[in-house]
Amino acid sequence: MNDELLIGGQPASAIIAAAGETPLFVYDFQIVRARFAALRAAMPPELSLHYAMKANPFSPLVTAMSALADGIDVASIGEMRLAIQCGADPAHMSFAGPGKRDAELEAAIAAGVTLNCESAGEAARTLAIMQRMGRRAKMAIRVNPDFELKGSGMRMGGRATAFGVDSPQVAALVRQIMAEGADWRGFHIYSGSQALDPDAIIEMQAATLALAARLADEAGASPPHLNLGGGFGIPYFAKEQPLDIARIGAALGGALAARPAVLADTGFAIELGRWLVGECGVYLTRVIDRKQSQGETFLVTDGGLHHQLAASGNFGTVVRRNYPIAVASRFGAPAEETATVVGCLCTPLDKLGDQIALPRADVGDVIAVFMAGAYGASASPSAFLGHGPAPEILLGG
Amino acid sequence: MNDELLIGGQPASAIIAAAGETPLFVYDFQIVRARFAALRAAMPPELSLHYAMKANPFSPLVTAMSALADGIDVASIGEMRLAIQCGADPAHMSFAGPGKRDAELEAAIAAGVTLNCESAGEAARTLAIMQRMGRRAKMAIRVNPDFELKGSGMRMGGRATAFGVDSPQVAALVRQIMAEGADWRGFHIYSGSQALDPDAIIEMQAATLALAARLADEAGASPPHLNLGGGFGIPYFAKEQPLDIARIGAALGGALAARPAVLADTGFAIELGRWLVGECGVYLTRVIDRKQSQGETFLVTDGGLHHQLAASGNFGTVVRRNYPIAVASRFGAPAEETATVVGCLCTPLDKLGDQIALPRADVGDVIAVFMAGAYGASASPSAFLGHGPAPEILLGG
Repeated sequence: MNDELLIGGQPASAIIAAAGETPLFVYDFQIVRARFAALRAAMPPELSLHYAMKANPFSPLVTAMSALADGIDVASIGEMRLAIQCGADPAHMSFAGPGKRDAELEAAIAAGVTLNCESAGEAARTLAIMQRMGRRAKMAIRVNPDFELKGSGMRMGGRATAFGVDSPQVAALVRQIMAEGADWRGFHIYSGSQALDPDAIIEMQAATLALAARLADEAGASPPHLNLGGGFGIPYFAKEQPLDIARIGAALGGALAARPAVLADTGFAIELGRWLVGECGVYLTRVIDRKQSQGETFLVTDGGLHHQLAASGNFGTVVRRNYPIAVASRFGAPAEETATVVGCLCTPLDKLGDQIALPRADVGDVIAVFMAGAYGASASPSAFLGHGPAPEILLGG
Repeated sequence: MNDELLIGGQPASAIIAAAGETPLFVYDFQIVRARFAALRAAMPPELSLHYAMKANPFSPLVTAMSALADGIDVASIGEMRLAIQCGADPAHMSFAGPGKRDAELEAAIAAGVTLNCESAGEAARTLAIMQRMGRRAKMAIRVNPDFELKGSGMRMGGRATAFGVDSPQVAALVRQIMAEGADWRGFHIYSGSQALDPDAIIEMQAATLALAARLADEAGASPPHLNLGGGFGIPYFAKEQPLDIARIGAALGGALAARPAVLADTGFAIELGRWLVGECGVYLTRVIDRKQSQGETFLVTDGGLHHQLAASGNFGTVVRRNYPIAVASRFGAPAEETATVVGCLCTPLDKLGDQIALPRADVGDVIAVFMAGAYGASASPSAFLGHGPAPEILLGG
C-alpha cells in the first residue's frame, strides 16, 4: 500500500493543484453531514441541534451548516452578522459571551437574536437598550451551574467564573426580566467542552435538567427553552476513543421523558461545534526542507502554528501531544522512520508533530495534519511573522 | 494619588478619544528611542544593533526603527517586503527561518538581503536559484550551536533543532558556498531568547565568539560578519529584574578586544526584538461588565486573548503568570480589591489578569495591560470569535 490521501474522494494533490498552493485547509462537508445524521439518529427527536460557529466560521461551511442545523450559536456581533449573511435564521440564533458591548446588544435585539445574558449588569444594560429601542429583547439567562463537566478539556461550571449568573441569583433575574417586558427565552447552561466520557456527559445533562427545573420552580416560571450546552469531545490523541453518542442519546431521551412537570412545555437544544466539524478538516502543508540535527530528522514545512496553533500545543494545552499526522502521498505506507514535523516559523514553538513515526517524506511531499476542522484557521495567529493566512476550501458543501 | 495613566505624556483617555475606540495598542516610540540610546551607550561602539521585526511589525514602528537600527532582521518574505516599504536598507537586512520557499529565496537574492542559511538543503536550493538568476546571493550560515543560553525563556541551541546547521557540518558548507561563487557573509548564531541573567548572556556571547572562531579556522576563512543573536529579556513578572546591559556591554567589549585573530576583520551584530519594543507598548481595554461569582470579582473587558495571547498565558508558557496590569484612570491609586480581569471571548482561556490587586474599577473604566509592545497584536489570533483585530497607534515616532 502506498496510496495517496483522499479528501472528499479527491486526491490531496489534485485539491492542492486546484487551490494553487500550500498550506491549505480542506474541509469535507460530507463528513459533517454524516456526523450530523448520526447525531440526529442518536438524539431524542425533540432535541434541537445547534452549531456553535466559533469552532469554524468559514463562510461556505457556515452556509452549509445553516441549512442543516436547527440553530446557530454565536459569540460576537461579527459572528452574528456572518451567520445571517450565510443564511442562518436570526430567530434560531443565540448570542453568548461575557463581554457584550452595548452596540452588540442593540444589534442582537434588532435582529431578533436571543441574548444569553451573562450577568445582572448585562441584563440591566439589555433592558435599558430595549426600552430605548422600543423593541422587545429575547433574553435567556446563562447559568453558572453548581457542577462541572467531569473530565472535560475545558471546564466552565462549578467554580467562580466570568460566564453566566450564579444559580442563587437566577430566579430573581428571571422575574425582573419578565417584569420589565423582555421575552424571556429560558436558560443556557454550559458546563464544559471536549469530554470523551459518555457517562460524564449523561451525568452533566441530568444535572442540567434538574438545575433548570429547580431554577424554574424558584422563579415560578417555565422556561420556553433550555440550551443544555455541548461538551461532546473528539479523539485528538492516541488511545482516545470516539464518544458513544448512542448511549448519550438514549440516556437523554429517558431523562427528557421523565423530566419534571415545570419543564413539560420546554424546548431543548444542545450546541456543538468541535464535535460536528473538528474531524472534517485536514491541514495540508508541503515539506520545504528535510534535515538532520544531532541524529534527529526534521521535516520543515511551509505551514505552522500561525495556522494551526492548537496542533502546536500552544492553545489551552499543558502537555504537548501530537495531532494525527500523515504523509499525504504515502497514506497507506508503513512507518519507516521517526521524524519531527515543524513549521516555517522562526520559533521553537512551531512544532506540528514531535518525533512521530512516518513513511519517508522528502522535499515537495505534503504532510496532512488531521482534526483541523475546528479551532484551526480562525483560532491561530495568522499575522505572526508575516507569512499570511492559509486558504480554506470546502468540499461537498 | 488618583492619577490617570500617561502614555507618551498623554492621558490614556485622550489617546482613546483620538483613536475612537477600545481595545487599542499604544506604542510610545520615545521609550524605544531611550532604550536604543541606552543600549548604544552600553555596548561596544563597533557592535551593530539590529531590530528583529518579528517582535512588532507595525509599519510606523518599523519605519521609525529603520532610521534608528543598524539593520533589520526578518523571518519571512512578508516581513522583508514590509521592512523595505518602511525604508529599511536591504543591504543591512538578514532573513532567517527554517522553511524558506524557493520564491522567498529568489526575492531575497533579488533584493540583496543576506540569507541566514538554515541547512545544507536550503544552501543547495539557494545556490541553484542564484545560478539560474545570474545574481550573487549573500549567504550567512546559521549555526546550531553546541551550547544553549542558560535560563532563557526559549532555548534554540544545544540540542537537535530545525534551526541552523549543526556545527560539525558548517566548515564544509562554508567552503561549498564560497566555491560556488556566493557572497559568504559569515555566521548567525542564535542560542535563545528572553534571558534575564546577564552572566548567562555574557557566557553565551563568549561561547559564540569562540565557536565562530573555531568554525572559521575549520573553514579556513574569516567571516565578514557575525550575528551574535539576541537573548536580552525583559521583566514581565513580579520579582523579575531588568537586565544589566552595562555589564553585558563591558564584557562583550572585553571579549571583542581579545578576540581570536581569525575574527580580526569581522563585523559584529546583535539582534534584539522584545528588549527594544516590549516595554513601549500598552494594551488598553475597557471594562464592559463588573460581576461577582462565588465571591470573586470579575472585570470583563472588551479585549482579550485574540489581541494579547501571550498575556493570557497561552503562548509558549507552561505556568500562567500575570503581566503587569493597572486601572488607567486610577494609576496612582492604592489597591482596594482583588479582581480577575478577563476578555470578552466565550472561553475560560481568555484571562488577562488572574486575581490581581487593583483599585476599584467599574464599567467604563479602562484597564492597561503593560509589556504589550512585543508579540502582542501580531502574535495573537485576531480572527478568533469574530471580534476583529485591535487598532494600533504609535506615539513619538
